Amino acid sequence: MSEPGAPITTDALIIGAGPAGLWLAFELGLLGISSQIVDAQATPGGQVATLYGDKPLYDIPGLPACTGQELTERLLLQVRPFAPELHLGQEIVSLESGGEDGGWRLGSSQGAQFHASCVFIAAGVGAFAPRRLKLDGIEALENSQVFHWWPNAGALFGQRVLVVGGDELALDRIDALLADASPPAAILLMHRRAVLQAPPERLARFEALCAQGRVAFEAGQITGLELEAGRLAAVQRSGPDGDLPTLAVDAIVVAQGLSPRLGPLADWGLAMERKQLPVDTARFATSLPGVFAVGDIVSYPGKKKLIVSAFHEATLAAFAAADLLNPQRSQILQYTSSSSLLHGRLKIES
Amino acid sequence: MSEPGAPITTDALIIGAGPAGLWLAFELGLLGISSQIVDAQATPGGQVATLYGDKPLYDIPGLPACTGQELTERLLLQVRPFAPELHLGQEIVSLESGGEDGGWRLGSSQGAQFHASCVFIAAGVGAFAPRRLKLDGIEALENSQVFHWWPNAGALFGQRVLVVGGDELALDRIDALLADASPPAAILLMHRRAVLQAPPERLARFEALCAQGRVAFEAGQITGLELEAGRLAAVQRSGPDGDLPTLAVDAIVVAQGLSPRLGPLADWGLAMERKQLPVDTARFATSLPGVFAVGDIVSYPGKKKLIVSAFHEATLAAFAAADLLNPQRSQILQYTSSSSLLHGRLKIES
Repeated sequence: MSEPGAPITTDALIIGAGPAGLWLAFELGLLGISSQIVDAQATPGGQVATLYGDKPLYDIPGLPACTGQELTERLLLQVRPFAPELHLGQEIVSLESGGEDGGWRLGSSQGAQFHASCVFIAAGVGAFAPRRLKLDGIEALENSQVFHWWPNAGALFGQRVLVVGGDELALDRIDALLADASPPAAILLMHRRAVLQAPPERLARFEALCAQGRVAFEAGQITGLELEAGRLAAVQRSGPDGDLPTLAVDAIVVAQGLSPRLGPLADWGLAMERKQLPVDTARFATSLPGVFAVGDIVSYPGKKKLIVSAFHEATLAAFAAADLLNPQRSQILQYTSSSSLLHGRLKIES
Repeated sequence: MSEPGAPITTDALIIGAGPAGLWLAFELGLLGISSQIVDAQATPGGQVATLYGDKPLYDIPGLPACTGQELTERLLLQVRPFAPELHLGQEIVSLESGGEDGGWRLGSSQGAQFHASCVFIAAGVGAFAPRRLKLDGIEALENSQVFHWWPNAGALFGQRVLVVGGDELALDRIDALLADASPPAAILLMHRRAVLQAPPERLARFEALCAQGRVAFEAGQITGLELEAGRLAAVQRSGPDGDLPTLAVDAIVVAQGLSPRLGPLADWGLAMERKQLPVDTARFATSLPGVFAVGDIVSYPGKKKLIVSAFHEATLAAFAAADLLNPQRSQILQYTSSSSLLHGRLKIES
């Protein structure tokens, strides 16, 4: 980890340790360029690890089914020969011209400072956070009785659990709670509307669970928390026709989706269109020289927010940066299957 | 397999069963479009299976080391839910407008006929074939005593083998022969020049093998074959200073590289630039309506001939084709991690 105040000089600073950022570090490494990676989250993997950590993805080429966590672990293993330094749990909060020194100066929320020749924004749609339930006193209950992220297995054993949400995410949470070897005693799904947003077969399954008495549903919302000795004891709630009686609960699981937060990069002078960074499809360059962007944060004609595209974008951005860093040397395309140079960089016996 | 003369009507005909073609079939499948794949080779996998079947690639995202054969098998497994029909061992030899019926009519070298709404050219740099040794009578010895492809393990046990070639491919062949559990009795590398084209460390290793007497090297070329009872017995050869004595050999391994052959598609009226198909980077459309192209055969600014890019190109081409096939229906991007529709198409219990 970096000491606050001691600037780290690097060829490449990558913002975001999701698949796009990790793959950037890999492709840069193949091109002989070492990198530093900064991510707001405490663990690498980005969105895909956060949203789909234990859910399989099916559209990563060559990996017929792979969870977000597994993909992250595979990419971390793959990039290991190039040993990018990871600076986790901190956001890049500032980006300024390096002035006479060229490049860019960047500062993190933890006080780390970087001087980078090239900057790569691979920040997804921003730092992802669950949409929070806004109620007085809720913060003190976080992760003990109120869960905005997935509760640990068995954590709600025997409890009366209120799930808040109205779409597939909420139904996923309920399925996971029911599948827990140590399940809650009772589950009530509460949504502010009487209609849930989910495909017909999901809804049918949920209705069957209701019919079996395994879960219950109520249209309404929580209006207040009632605590006893600092612990959540009950919730106040209102329904479509006005206030409802107080409901005794042991835990609240909030499943209202995740909300990306673009964060400080909106203030760096980058040309943006509808919260996206427009880039060209040859170099994935932003409007600032030496600042590239890849992944879900970029826009270009035809763009799809898919990991398979992020890998390609990262690859071309790495080549573009190599051209910028070594203008004299043309980057001859070499193949990892046969190039002794690349084998050396990959630390493989060729 | 298709009966000659019975036209197969399909939404999507894919030319090429390499990684790009297989991934096209996958992405089309996710979009609800079934496909037919035609490939000149007898087995799927394209270039990467042909050139790197048993050599690891290191730059497939999420697969830190993966041979061309393994990648092919993984992609075949992944595309299985969509059951694209494979038509192997045949080239598409003609492409003509479907006229009033719209789309395109295509014919294969085996007489198969297709009527396709969309055509995808994922033909790599053409059908790959080893550069052949041109000598009278060589065809009759193919795969018995003359090998343009890798000989099977143990096939040359105890034999006097002449390897023809001058670069890393030739050195790879020699390494493989030496590593064979049933190796040849003697190996001579012959190259028309005294200098081999390979990185210094490969050359040093080869020189060490020569010093150990495990292989020998000779500058020269084969000028004729001497047969006894229909079997190769010796070769005539010339060196830099003229003819050399006849050399008794049991087998010739030709390692002169592979030469792509673009084949009939050069005659289909597609706009081409330097044997490449220029495409846009949003739809990967060629100059012919409904004909898309992806992979090593395409050119666009920044293009790198990498599999990671082919996957992206195939993905966007599939979306573009879906828009063309279903102009009324906008293709909302769904995620395989969460979409029940995609799970249904993937035949996954969601």
